[in-house]
Amino acid sequence: MNQKVIIIGAGLAGSLLAIYVAKRGIAVEIYEARGDMRLETVAAGRSINLALSDRGIAALREVGMDEYMLSEAVPMYGRMIHSVSGETKLLPYSGRQGEYINSVSRAGLNIALINEAEKHDGVRFYFNERCVDFDCRTGEAHLSSGKIVKGNTLIATDGAGSAVRHAMLHGGVERFNFEQTWLEHGYKELVIPSGQNRLRERVASEFPSDQNRLRERVASEFVMEKNALHIWPRHKFMMIALPNFDGSFTCTLFLALKGENSFERLERRHPAGKTSAASRNPPAHAGGSDKSRNPSAHAGGYDLSAETLIDFFEANFPDALQHMPTLTEDFFANPVGNLGTIKCFPWNVGGKALLLGDSAHAVVPFYGQGMNCAFEDVRVLDQVIEKHGTDWETVYNEYGELRKINTDAIADMAEENFYEMRDAVADPVFVRKRELETKLEQTYPDYFSKYSMVTFREDLPYSVAKEKGNAQDRLLMEICAGVENVSEIALDEVIKQIQFRQIV
Amino acid sequence: MNQKVIIIGAGLAGSLLAIYVAKRGIAVEIYEARGDMRLETVAAGRSINLALSDRGIAALREVGMDEYMLSEAVPMYGRMIHSVSGETKLLPYSGRQGEYINSVSRAGLNIALINEAEKHDGVRFYFNERCVDFDCRTGEAHLSSGKIVKGNTLIATDGAGSAVRHAMLHGGVERFNFEQTWLEHGYKELVIPSGQNRLRERVASEFPSDQNRLRERVASEFVMEKNALHIWPRHKFMMIALPNFDGSFTCTLFLALKGENSFERLERRHPAGKTSAASRNPPAHAGGSDKSRNPSAHAGGYDLSAETLIDFFEANFPDALQHMPTLTEDFFANPVGNLGTIKCFPWNVGGKALLLGDSAHAVVPFYGQGMNCAFEDVRVLDQVIEKHGTDWETVYNEYGELRKINTDAIADMAEENFYEMRDAVADPVFVRKRELETKLEQTYPDYFSKYSMVTFREDLPYSVAKEKGNAQDRLLMEICAGVENVSEIALDEVIKQIQFRQIV
Repeated sequence: MNQKVIIIGAGLAGSLLAIYVAKRGIAVEIYEARGDMRLETVAAGRSINLALSDRGIAALREVGMDEYMLSEAVPMYGRMIHSVSGETKLLPYSGRQGEYINSVSRAGLNIALINEAEKHDGVRFYFNERCVDFDCRTGEAHLSSGKIVKGNTLIATDGAGSAVRHAMLHGGVERFNFEQTWLEHGYKELVIPSGQNRLRERVASEFPSDQNRLRERVASEFVMEKNALHIWPRHKFMMIALPNFDGSFTCTLFLALKGENSFERLERRHPAGKTSAASRNPPAHAGGSDKSRNPSAHAGGYDLSAETLIDFFEANFPDALQHMPTLTEDFFANPVGNLGTIKCFPWNVGGKALLLGDSAHAVVPFYGQGMNCAFEDVRVLDQVIEKHGTDWETVYNEYGELRKINTDAIADMAEENFYEMRDAVADPVFVRKRELETKLEQTYPDYFSKYSMVTFREDLPYSVAKEKGNAQDRLLMEICAGVENVSEIALDEVIKQIQFRQIV
Repeated sequence: MNQKVIIIGAGLAGSLLAIYVAKRGIAVEIYEARGDMRLETVAAGRSINLALSDRGIAALREVGMDEYMLSEAVPMYGRMIHSVSGETKLLPYSGRQGEYINSVSRAGLNIALINEAEKHDGVRFYFNERCVDFDCRTGEAHLSSGKIVKGNTLIATDGAGSAVRHAMLHGGVERFNFEQTWLEHGYKELVIPSGQNRLRERVASEFPSDQNRLRERVASEFVMEKNALHIWPRHKFMMIALPNFDGSFTCTLFLALKGENSFERLERRHPAGKTSAASRNPPAHAGGSDKSRNPSAHAGGYDLSAETLIDFFEANFPDALQHMPTLTEDFFANPVGNLGTIKCFPWNVGGKALLLGDSAHAVVPFYGQGMNCAFEDVRVLDQVIEKHGTDWETVYNEYGELRKINTDAIADMAEENFYEMRDAVADPVFVRKRELETKLEQTYPDYFSKYSMVTFREDLPYSVAKEKGNAQDRLLMEICAGVENVSEIALDEVIKQIQFRQIV
């Protein structure tokens, strides 16, 4: 073809895209702002693991990457709901065998994709090359190094803060529709280390000669159920945890940025916290504090901020707290991330440039679909290239028409799911509804809940999953509000109603 | 108070704001990108007249400007609907006496406000001083002249393309929510000159000695009903016309930018159009064209573009066409404007800066509320200053909380009204609904239709008008869909239902 595509950003979407494009015999130059992650540690604050599900897997499958990635993943069969008193209840994601989501390492997946892309002749990665501007008239990308690069076209996978989209917004594209909205909540990543490591450490310090005996007592490295996505729903806030391959869990605390129960409150350093020595100014209410709560909670001296934090976890996440020895260190060291949705249109500058993935449609993480959607973007784009070849303007226009309605749908569903995860999973009617959906899926192979349509049906556009799913939600919530127990519900009556309404 | 407020933009909102602020004894410096409009002609493409209604009048009243402005306005009592065949029907805006809207000259109003502001000591206007950037940390505004200005605070009334908002969006304000959306339709302004002038011209050329006799025959300068807002609703597009004080009408054609019946089609210059000589390449279908359609339609030579345009007007607006002698000149000379909605939040940078009017919330023009809303902004802001004095951060935070819900409501209603104006006013059910609303307003003094709540009830927030109005719309449309004629409807039953639902 003798064509060259410039890709901006070697994240998950850009790296997968490079493989797809290279397979069509098109040369690829990919410019990444960060250093080569194969040589560096991952920057703090980015999500460490992600839920890979069927739409993402389908896109990996076409380039032969699915089995390798799944071999490194931890399957999650459902949501494990933790009550304040520490009781747990598993709400399966599906009533069918083989339908589950997969916790994968962001860095591991990204590196695997870069390595795979580099196997192709004509693919060249350039790291530490940040795109700072794009000229919508000439199609030239300006890099922070001063370099100016241009191909037959450019695809921007430079994420939610895309420099290419910025140029389109500011005069590059007339009547550019653009929307960025932020949640009042932020997030912070925390850690539950693997049990074996923790015990090993404790054994090493307390019983230096006793390690082998204790190792045998540890049935699993995971201190909580391994094969679940853990949720501590607390209405106005929540914490979740995803298992990592090494036995640890990465926790994410979602909390309001300001007001009662907020990061602002928890992060506020009390004057006492500034003294590194212990108890120069012992806090009035700290006398009764139970040190056994958390062995390292007071590391660095008595500190009102740490006290407040521990009190907050004690009150809301006591069963998680016991597994979080580095909570205070992690909490005060890790940044608070913002949660936003970005929508825009058109995504292309004629045939000169296309936005793809987060640069076109960043979503909040509550449906676990950000990466899966970006991978599906790549697969859909490739199908349109199959049809129109390298007539980029035609390809991009058709891709946008096909895809926009679906990325809008998943963006909306992701925002709605925040409220579902923090509120509804603690609501008995909602719990009954999930039980009913599971029973329906167990009984009727052709029935898919809204969650299943989004997560396990890569053949179904997001927009259809949203429309049918919302109609199902209304119907099933109504049915479940009228009973005490799901066993009272006649499944055949429910499925008849669903089929009659054509909402599956 | 010894305070100084910088105002960016001396348009309608900025000039009125200057008066309000000056009345509180605060010094005002107001920087305007354009030249002094008192010395220059108005730039083409900006709307020439505007509908001033009760919210705007209320804000003018507080600074003693209402009566003067109304004396220069043309009252419009209703919408005059023009069918394709040229039949007209007046749908009154209200069933009450004294409730009407007023067509005012944008330039006339703006100049009056600037003159009034300048009467106050401590108000100083700087023209040809464009604000190009705002430093959200220091509160300094950077002007294109290189000047840097700063007061105790800054209020940005620099319109939909606000440079201050731009700075807030690009790093100045964290988690800045921002949305810009554009209609697929654009607009173009056209002219229906005053009848007397047209006749006078024709008389002067055809019957030079006969002017006095003809002048007597002209009953009015206005060639159509003077006291109405004229609408030619054609489903996918429409034209409107507002009367000017001098007997002319300013028409605005709203048309899709692309596709069938679009500006793109009408503006496309046919190769034949490039020849300035007549009929070098006479168009095949032009032989039968009737010159009497429009005396100057073919000025500048036979031109397929002009042919297409005249055909389009002939087919869709024949009764207007006969009054538009300069249609082709105006059409090809005047620009196509875009129609967009802008929403953002927060509107302030602490106490350093505030967005007000279009810079904070540009709306499409279909409810005639853009200026009225901006004037109401000024009045509401002044009330909050009354409460909190010059504690600008407190003032701005409270103003934003009070006002955002209402500017969102009018933005949404303005978009919805586009569809009402171009589609619904041609729908018999809708026409019956307006008749019913008029009868209800005539019969029950406490009843206000949605339109009346928005337009004539400055005591009612837009958000309340929207909520109650939409509930009314649903109820009344349902009632009117079930009858052939409004006379079949029992008014007392309808008003009971409205009162029961508390939607008035």
